[in-house]
Amino acid sequence: MIFNTESISKLEKKYRTHLINSLSGFKSANLIGTQDLFGNTNLAIVSSVFHLGAHPPLVGMIIRPHSSPRHTLENIIETGFYTINQVNGDIYKQAHQTSARYDKFESEFDNTGLTKQYLGGLNAPYVKQSRLKYGVKLVENQCLSVNDTQLVIGLIVEIHVDDKAIDDDGFVNLQAIDTVALSGLDCYHSTEKLARLPYAKK
Amino acid sequence: MIFNTESISKLEKKYRTHLINSLSGFKSANLIGTQDLFGNTNLAIVSSVFHLGAHPPLVGMIIRPHSSPRHTLENIIETGFYTINQVNGDIYKQAHQTSARYDKFESEFDNTGLTKQYLGGLNAPYVKQSRLKYGVKLVENQCLSVNDTQLVIGLIVEIHVDDKAIDDDGFVNLQAIDTVALSGLDCYHSTEKLARLPYAKK
Repeated sequence: MIFNTESISKLEKKYRTHLINSLSGFKSANLIGTQDLFGNTNLAIVSSVFHLGAHPPLVGMIIRPHSSPRHTLENIIETGFYTINQVNGDIYKQAHQTSARYDKFESEFDNTGLTKQYLGGLNAPYVKQSRLKYGVKLVENQCLSVNDTQLVIGLIVEIHVDDKAIDDDGFVNLQAIDTVALSGLDCYHSTEKLARLPYAKK
Repeated sequence: MIFNTESISKLEKKYRTHLINSLSGFKSANLIGTQDLFGNTNLAIVSSVFHLGAHPPLVGMIIRPHSSPRHTLENIIETGFYTINQVNGDIYKQAHQTSARYDKFESEFDNTGLTKQYLGGLNAPYVKQSRLKYGVKLVENQCLSVNDTQLVIGLIVEIHVDDKAIDDDGFVNLQAIDTVALSGLDCYHSTEKLARLPYAKK
């Protein structure tokens, strides 16, 4: 099937949203934990978290301005901190439910059965059920003028990960902790390792 | 296992690279096809392609300044166009091999056995073996000052996808076309669908 600029622009809105959301390939599934200055917590599933650099350890994500995670963005700007919690096979349904349009003072923790956890003195809640999670300090928040989405860049300040998941060389076995991958807007997948490949040489 | 800012900074470089690259979760695996104004082609595997918006259809990616895909970035700036080709289980080894440090005028196509394909008049080569691929027009290229990586944003101008992969609602079944997911720097995975979940409501 072939689509061009004209046929893409004529697609029915939901069809186009599903199609375009599938093009980048498999996405990460992460829960972003935040709170406001009064301790009201928020939890939002985000599929756009991406690696930005290892030294310093930086992570990026895209947040749409009028989407469910907008309260998350307000909290991040207010406190300067957030947690990123990988979604695993035991909690993907609860994680997906955080995308419902709860009001700002309805915590997604209370409404989904996911459990708040405070670690390392960070003023943002972790998800207890997540097996790989880390605390992040806001470094930069910029509006991408091309479509008014927000690019949020953070510095990783602490990492909590199940011992069994880390190999001797620092590689984390995401399959061992049952981290899920996302496709499109709403499809969750477990994974099966094909191979780790050696550093490529000419 | 717990790491904090101090212990992260003290990690051996390769260990830290593997660890931090694992934190974002599963990544997409895509081949970026480009050519210079003389038609010299380039192909680079990139794990940082992410969905940016459906209307207009936009896609982002991060390119490190001194990495293997730097020739790709030069070509994108020169011609204004590139292709993004999803990596599947049949070609992930060849795709990984494109990350070797070939010289600018050694084409990764010739060196990996992947086949050039020109479609739709776009002045950038596709990968014939890829089952979901699209042509992209450069919209914006900015340096992220936080670590001197390049954020490249493009407009999707044409899409080529196997008919059997698209559902009635526009969702693309990435599993049906055997698209792989990546973890860390070098681990490739096939996927198994858990479920598509309905739009979440309060």
